[in-house]
Amino acid sequence: MSKIAVGVLGATGAVGQRFISLLAQHPWFEITDLLASERSAGKRYGDAVSWILDTPLPAHIADMPVRPAHPDAAGARILFSALPSEQARELEPAFATAGHYLFSNASAYRMAPDVPLVITEVNPEHLNMVRVQQARRGWDGFIVCNANCTTTHLVGGLHPLHLAFGVESVFVATMQAASGAGYPGVPALDLIDNIVPHEYGEEEKVETEPLKIMGGFEGGHFVDANMTISAHCHRVPVLDGHFEAVSVALRTPATAEQINDAFRSYRRSPQELGLPSAPDPAVVVVEGMSRPQPRLDRMTGRGMATVVGRIRPCNLLDWRFSVLGHNTIRGAAGGSILNAEWMVHQQIMAV
Amino acid sequence: MSKIAVGVLGATGAVGQRFISLLAQHPWFEITDLLASERSAGKRYGDAVSWILDTPLPAHIADMPVRPAHPDAAGARILFSALPSEQARELEPAFATAGHYLFSNASAYRMAPDVPLVITEVNPEHLNMVRVQQARRGWDGFIVCNANCTTTHLVGGLHPLHLAFGVESVFVATMQAASGAGYPGVPALDLIDNIVPHEYGEEEKVETEPLKIMGGFEGGHFVDANMTISAHCHRVPVLDGHFEAVSVALRTPATAEQINDAFRSYRRSPQELGLPSAPDPAVVVVEGMSRPQPRLDRMTGRGMATVVGRIRPCNLLDWRFSVLGHNTIRGAAGGSILNAEWMVHQQIMAV
Amino acid sequence: MSKIAVGVLGATGAVGQRFISLLAQHPWFEITDLLASERSAGKRYGDAVSWILDTPLPAHIADMPVRPAHPDAAGARILFSALPSEQARELEPAFATAGHYLFSNASAYRMAPDVPLVITEVNPEHLNMVRVQQARRGWDGFIVCNANCTTTHLVGGLHPLHLAFGVESVFVATMQAASGAGYPGVPALDLIDNIVPHEYGEEEKVETEPLKIMGGFEGGHFVDANMTISAHCHRVPVLDGHFEAVSVALRTPATAEQINDAFRSYRRSPQELGLPSAPDPAVVVVEGMSRPQPRLDRMTGRGMATVVGRIRPCNLLDWRFSVLGHNTIRGAAGGSILNAEWMVHQQIMAV
Amino acid sequence: MSKIAVGVLGATGAVGQRFISLLAQHPWFEITDLLASERSAGKRYGDAVSWILDTPLPAHIADMPVRPAHPDAAGARILFSALPSEQARELEPAFATAGHYLFSNASAYRMAPDVPLVITEVNPEHLNMVRVQQARRGWDGFIVCNANCTTTHLVGGLHPLHLAFGVESVFVATMQAASGAGYPGVPALDLIDNIVPHEYGEEEKVETEPLKIMGGFEGGHFVDANMTISAHCHRVPVLDGHFEAVSVALRTPATAEQINDAFRSYRRSPQELGLPSAPDPAVVVVEGMSRPQPRLDRMTGRGMATVVGRIRPCNLLDWRFSVLGHNTIRGAAGGSILNAEWMVHQQIMAV
Repeated sequence: MSKIAVGVLGATGAVGQRFISLLAQHPWFEITDLLASERSAGKRYGDAVSWILDTPLPAHIADMPVRPAHPDAAGARILFSALPSEQARELEPAFATAGHYLFSNASAYRMAPDVPLVITEVNPEHLNMVRVQQARRGWDGFIVCNANCTTTHLVGGLHPLHLAFGVESVFVATMQAASGAGYPGVPALDLIDNIVPHEYGEEEKVETEPLKIMGGFEGGHFVDANMTISAHCHRVPVLDGHFEAVSVALRTPATAEQINDAFRSYRRSPQELGLPSAPDPAVVVVEGMSRPQPRLDRMTGRGMATVVGRIRPCNLLDWRFSVLGHNTIRGAAGGSILNAEWMVHQQIMAV
Repeated sequence: MSKIAVGVLGATGAVGQRFISLLAQHPWFEITDLLASERSAGKRYGDAVSWILDTPLPAHIADMPVRPAHPDAAGARILFSALPSEQARELEPAFATAGHYLFSNASAYRMAPDVPLVITEVNPEHLNMVRVQQARRGWDGFIVCNANCTTTHLVGGLHPLHLAFGVESVFVATMQAASGAGYPGVPALDLIDNIVPHEYGEEEKVETEPLKIMGGFEGGHFVDANMTISAHCHRVPVLDGHFEAVSVALRTPATAEQINDAFRSYRRSPQELGLPSAPDPAVVVVEGMSRPQPRLDRMTGRGMATVVGRIRPCNLLDWRFSVLGHNTIRGAAGGSILNAEWMVHQQIMAV
Repeated sequence: MSKIAVGVLGATGAVGQRFISLLAQHPWFEITDLLASERSAGKRYGDAVSWILDTPLPAHIADMPVRPAHPDAAGARILFSALPSEQARELEPAFATAGHYLFSNASAYRMAPDVPLVITEVNPEHLNMVRVQQARRGWDGFIVCNANCTTTHLVGGLHPLHLAFGVESVFVATMQAASGAGYPGVPALDLIDNIVPHEYGEEEKVETEPLKIMGGFEGGHFVDANMTISAHCHRVPVLDGHFEAVSVALRTPATAEQINDAFRSYRRSPQELGLPSAPDPAVVVVEGMSRPQPRLDRMTGRGMATVVGRIRPCNLLDWRFSVLGHNTIRGAAGGSILNAEWMVHQQIMAV
Repeated sequence: MSKIAVGVLGATGAVGQRFISLLAQHPWFEITDLLASERSAGKRYGDAVSWILDTPLPAHIADMPVRPAHPDAAGARILFSALPSEQARELEPAFATAGHYLFSNASAYRMAPDVPLVITEVNPEHLNMVRVQQARRGWDGFIVCNANCTTTHLVGGLHPLHLAFGVESVFVATMQAASGAGYPGVPALDLIDNIVPHEYGEEEKVETEPLKIMGGFEGGHFVDANMTISAHCHRVPVLDGHFEAVSVALRTPATAEQINDAFRSYRRSPQELGLPSAPDPAVVVVEGMSRPQPRLDRMTGRGMATVVGRIRPCNLLDWRFSVLGHNTIRGAAGGSILNAEWMVHQQIMAV
């Protein structure tokens, strides 16, 4: 097939850059629109952006013009949104009204009752909610959200166990990378020889988003999973890769071997469909008590896999383990792209 | 009074240096013996050591000779031991047999049934076990241990609550500084843009040592506290200062105000006696969800205080908070010195 | 004497905080005015500031009100200015017109022909230019500048040799700390696992400011020193402490011993007068090819000394060595305070 | 052609790992021998190595046995040596005597008068010295050295100018990555919030090796280039990528445009022959005063290119610029492999 035109909203920021780097070589999608703030609009992308990735800015993207973030400036129907949350709150409905399909990394609408919050391996059936959303809001387009990066990796580690044994309660302490705060994000003066506990909202997101994602979709409504999560969130001096220490209580007892099996045999719709951005395996279990480590393991499955290790019994709950994921790939741009791939493959939207 | 002669065993290592920096200006103690391995023995200390602290090596210490780590080379009766654990296992009993009082930072004898494992604010009465130890082992000297650094800060945060409400169970995830692994310790290639989960033994120490420390001392025996701890331990790119995210279940319900009160009113024997190394207050509660932070808070109370912050309810247990302490001051050399100060003050040993 | 009232302009920023931490315990000065932008004005200082120093914010300062940065809000005659350069350009003359004595860390007026640019050990006689400045500009007050931090440490290393042998040409490559860019300053994403060459103006400052500072003051005019400097400037992942690799050609040949002597015997007016902030010795020579190092040596002389090491012949010019200084103490707030101390001591200004 | 068997000497160390990662997919070479110390010999490679690269250890390599570093254990004729220098001094001649072709990254024989020290773009004709070496030493094999990593990148930046205009004198200040010291290498305690000037030998290597490499090969002798270099060398908190600030005096005047042309048009035998590891272009000129940066630019040309930027006039010599290269790829393993490729292509050795 000829490639499907897509655009990036908020194209100059950290997540916008990651969208571009993942889409620049995509087998199905072709970037036709780079939308950003008034400050950048009108410039050549290569001149407007302060490129922070260690993979080079593709030359043909660098030469594209940046357009203003207005619906009438976007030719592509599918838009990936890397907007800051406040801007997303205002702009994304305008784009959806104008008929655009928004795959949004912003938190603004994640918890809205008619917006799917989707990790493609976990709850792709939630994507059908867009019909309800369109009907209710009178939109030709729609908004689909991917989860907070920390949520994404946590659920990546919990869902295989939830499917197999039922997860009842979860402790998680996170060590999150600097790139999770965008660019410029965290000052170097705060992160050299230091760690910074999270101030606003992050723990709440990690405690609530997973319940929606691992919950049901019945009669046009989302039903939260029955699970309790307690999160301690921290920023550490790491560029990319969120590390999470997890303890879980299960509804059905499980042996170490069964836990391992549950992780290793976790294979879901994106893997079965062979979607271009789907990691296969979806979960990689690493050996040795000193793994996973952000620098060594974040690019597993081209940054799209969930890496699990340190599986051992917990003194308080049932099992302990560690989860690692690449926060700007799987936890942001890549997760959003995988949702779009699933919808294209399932022909849920007209493209 | 004239100063009491003390020596440092393992004087050239990271903890040995910290002992020296804390003892060099001590009002009660005077360093007379610097003992180290054969490789260093015979040299001038300033030539033998690779000084890694950012406070200067005192000139009069630099000029002292390093002696071999043999009992007959030590003139001082009180010795602070910064030996690696394997060497401590062999050498410390030899010194105790020869009549030396060992205040040891090594883990070798921490869990021995007749060796006091003491955080001075928490269980100074355990120090009386040295009588039993001397009788049983036929030693003129004795061995007193301070806890693992991570244990020390955890107990520093738990004990005020344990006293007031009873702590039943504890979840702790640690972010530990590089200096906890000594020098040379962790390679830079492992800790730039990375975190490293702990491979051996650390979690077991953190799960067992607190039970001995917060336990009883009855009829010449230690009785473990009735408490369950689950620890996730990690090394992060921080020079000094261990950060610990803690959730606790209490035996008696407590309000936020009561929790705060328990921390703020925690005042124990070292504070009451005004011991030279005692921080006062022992626990400092910092405001704001983004504190404590290692770089900003580790020197609180000259590195001897326990810093507590982020007190908030826990979804699973009762309360959550974060604890921070300086791992080579309070968590190692300083904790050991405070134990010695208490025994000197209480005249438990002849000096 | 009773203490002299002083104020800090731009009190909430990184350099402003350093001024406060150095002035809070000053034997001669007492902070009476904290001036900052409209955004902070009216708040309690402790609420307005995001304190980034690892020494605590003094409690009595935290409780002081922040006033707007207008001349009529300042009661103290002496003001230390930590304003950003663009604001300094506009505001400092207004304060000088209103009779204030400005000791400014901003670059705005450093190269003005009637503004003294002073490192107190090097050219305190330039401070007499304020008479000319007042006369020419019709000001009751005046502006005195201290140098760029990188310049300050470079001149700290060059001046002893310039006095003794004459410096003809200089090659300098700098490795500058993050704090030199203020707060928030450099993003962590730019400085973890990375170095960033300087983009604007820094090299020009380092190549020109030293000529004014080490130059003459004759007949009411400054005369540049006859010296050529080539600077390569870079930002590195260090919190505090600028490191500079220097090669020099001298006008008079010198032996290694003479070079060492020139550094070690360098004793100038601030040392002779025993000014409170003067380091003594002014230059500290460290031994060993692996020193100085920022973390280990930046606090030498309470952060006010110039640390020199690695003195060795140069294949191209005459001698090579390395210089280190604390960029926000000696290189910013502390240097400014020392200038004020000298003027107070010499009774150049009415206070 | 079928692939040529090659072995790696010192296979478990940092440079050994890099050799493996580059050779595992090589179109001409196939790893058949992994040789390491007695401690590792006999183990499966995956068990013997502590893999530190962020690219995964190839599975087929992990399953290979480690053999002892003795000539009779090596089946492959071509061996890439990643031995520490002291071991290389002893072992490499034994292998060469036994008929092996050694491409060595060790410094032991770099300056030997009959050992080629080669950067393939610069002096491949020096490789013909192996005939002289074999005749003189009675070896069936030979030793070919690649340069010190810092030398390699410096020469990568100098040679285009030397060819075009003649380089007379050079100032260079380096900011070198931690991986240049191997693994475990530099302790984290030395490189967090710090830089460490080089203690031993590095500056001497950087001042002498380039003269041999850019020198002539006449009548069976090497003749040093007529050039003076002054080097200041430092270790910085960067994982990979050496940054070098360079000033040069040229024998023939050159304009900025000519300098740029010389870099951009630099195309040499490896590029013309299209050797598999040859970067093309060999030198990449980056725009903007803030580039190159290690994290963003080190992988240019798959880590084999020389990255040049910040070209500007020098106040003292003629021109200033910055050079960056990947120290364990171009500066070590990759440089060695490129030498081997050239010799295979030119059929200088029987394989």
